[in-house]
Amino acid sequence: MSRFSLNQASIKYASLEEAVRTTVDAAIPAIGLWREPVAERGLAASAALVRAAGLRVSSLCRGGFFTAPAGPARRHAIDDNRRAIEEAATLGAPTLVLVAGGLPEGSRDLSGARERVRDAIAELEGDALAAGVMLGIEPLHPMYVTDRAVVSTLGQALDIAEQFDARAVGVVVDTFHVFWDPQVLESVARAGATGRIASYQVCDWVTPIATDPLLSRGYPGDGHIDFESITRAVAAAGYTGDVECEIFNQDIWDSPYDEVAATCVARYEELVAPWVRATRGRSG
Amino acid sequence: MSRFSLNQASIKYASLEEAVRTTVDAAIPAIGLWREPVAERGLAASAALVRAAGLRVSSLCRGGFFTAPAGPARRHAIDDNRRAIEEAATLGAPTLVLVAGGLPEGSRDLSGARERVRDAIAELEGDALAAGVMLGIEPLHPMYVTDRAVVSTLGQALDIAEQFDARAVGVVVDTFHVFWDPQVLESVARAGATGRIASYQVCDWVTPIATDPLLSRGYPGDGHIDFESITRAVAAAGYTGDVECEIFNQDIWDSPYDEVAATCVARYEELVAPWVRATRGRSG
Repeated sequence: MSRFSLNQASIKYASLEEAVRTTVDAAIPAIGLWREPVAERGLAASAALVRAAGLRVSSLCRGGFFTAPAGPARRHAIDDNRRAIEEAATLGAPTLVLVAGGLPEGSRDLSGARERVRDAIAELEGDALAAGVMLGIEPLHPMYVTDRAVVSTLGQALDIAEQFDARAVGVVVDTFHVFWDPQVLESVARAGATGRIASYQVCDWVTPIATDPLLSRGYPGDGHIDFESITRAVAAAGYTGDVECEIFNQDIWDSPYDEVAATCVARYEELVAPWVRATRGRSG
Repeated sequence: MSRFSLNQASIKYASLEEAVRTTVDAAIPAIGLWREPVAERGLAASAALVRAAGLRVSSLCRGGFFTAPAGPARRHAIDDNRRAIEEAATLGAPTLVLVAGGLPEGSRDLSGARERVRDAIAELEGDALAAGVMLGIEPLHPMYVTDRAVVSTLGQALDIAEQFDARAVGVVVDTFHVFWDPQVLESVARAGATGRIASYQVCDWVTPIATDPLLSRGYPGDGHIDFESITRAVAAAGYTGDVECEIFNQDIWDSPYDEVAATCVARYEELVAPWVRATRGRSG
C-alpha cells in the first residue's frame, strides 16, 4: 500500500480535516486534494494539516477549462490556473490535474477549442517549471467531449504535452476515461518513454451509465475494466508515483468515509497493487 | 436531395409499409432498412414493396454481435449474419451495417473480444463477396464499448476492415459516433483511399446525455456536431453513396412520421447537402 493514495473526491462530502483523518486512520500514505475543500480551510492551514498528518499529497485537482475564446473569461481561466499551480506547490503536490474544458456555448468548433487548450498550456509552462509542478492533462472519456473536456484520448493529450518541457507538462492516466481506447497501452508506453505520466488514477466503468454520467464510476472490481493490463503498462512505462483511487458515485458519497477508504484499499490491494512495482511514491 | 436516405430507425414505430409511404411522400429517394420490420412483413414482400415504390435501399441494419466466445452463441451469430447478408442482397442494399457487440457477460477482456470480431468477419468475407454486399463495420461511441460495441473508433474499424477485400468489408461513418475523435478527418480520408466507406449516417450529439444513452441523438442542428467538416471529408474521400439520417430519440419516435421525415430533409438540406458532391447514389 506504499503507493496508494485516496483522492478526496471519493469522499466528496468530507471536509479537508475529515478527509485527512480518514486517510490516516486507514493507514493510507497519500491523499489527492481538491481546490475547493483546501480553499475552505485556507491554503496555508491545509498545507500544515496535511504535513502534520505525515501524508504525501499525490495531486491537486484541478485546473484547466481552457476553451474560452480570447476575452475576460479566458484571462480569468489562465489567472486561476496560475493560482492553482501555486497552491499545488504550497501543498507539495507534484501534479496539478487539468481538465481541458468543453465547447464554448453555441460553438461546434472542436479543433479550435483544442488549439486553445494548447495555447493556454503554453502560457502556463513557465509557471509550472518555476513552481516545480507538473501540469497533468487528463483526457476525459469521449462522452464528456462537448461539455467538459475536448481532450478525449491519451494520444491526443500527449500530442499537446510533447510540445512542452517534460518537467512541466504530462498526462493523467485515469482508467475510467481511457480503458476503452484501442491504443491505450501504446499511448501509456509513449507517455512513459518521455516521462510524461503525471498521475495514475483508478476507478471502474460501471454500466448502465448513471443518469448523471459524471457519477457512473465504481470501486475497482465493480465494473468492466481489466486493471491488470493497464496497470502493468503504467508500471512498465516507468511510473513510480502514487496510484489514486478517485470515484464519483452518489452511493459511495453517501457511505461512511471510513468504509469508502477501506473498500478503496481492499480493491487496490486485490486488483491493482499486484501489478504496481514496489517503488517509493514520486513525492515520497 | 438526390443522395438523401431516411433510415427507418428514425421512425422506429412505423411498419415497413408506413416507412416506405412516408419516404415516398417526402420525395426522399432512398431508405435504410432494419431487419425486424422487414422480417415482420416477409423478405420477398418487403423487397417487392420497396422496389415498387421506386426507392433505393441504402443499407440494411444490422448484423454483428460477434464477441461471444467459441460455442453455440457464436455459431448462431455467424449463421444469423449469413442470413443478414442474403437479406441485404435480396433487398438490393449495398451495405450490411455491423455492430461489433460488447463484452461477454463477466468478461473484462476487450482485446480478446476485438479479436473475435475480426475472426467472425473473416468467416463472412466470402459470403459478402458472393452476395455483392459490403459489410460495414460501424464504430460506436466509446460510451457503448462494454455493452454494445467493442469497436470504438474509425481507425480501429479500418484496422479490421483492411485485413479483407475492399469489396467485402468497409466502415460506417456515423457522425454521432465519431465526431469527437481527434483523428476522425484523417480516418475518413484513410477509409476513402481504399474505398472502404460503406455508409455515411448523420445525426447530432445532444447534451445532456439521455437517461437511456442509446437515445441521446438529435436532428442535425439540435446538438454540437459540425456537419460541414466531416461531410466535406467524406465527400473529399470519394464517397458517392447515400447519406442516411438515423436518429434514436424518444421524442422523435413519438412524433408523426411525416413530420420526422420533413425535419430530417430540411436539416439535411441546410447542414449536410451543401457539402455533399452532387453525384448519384451508390446503388442508384
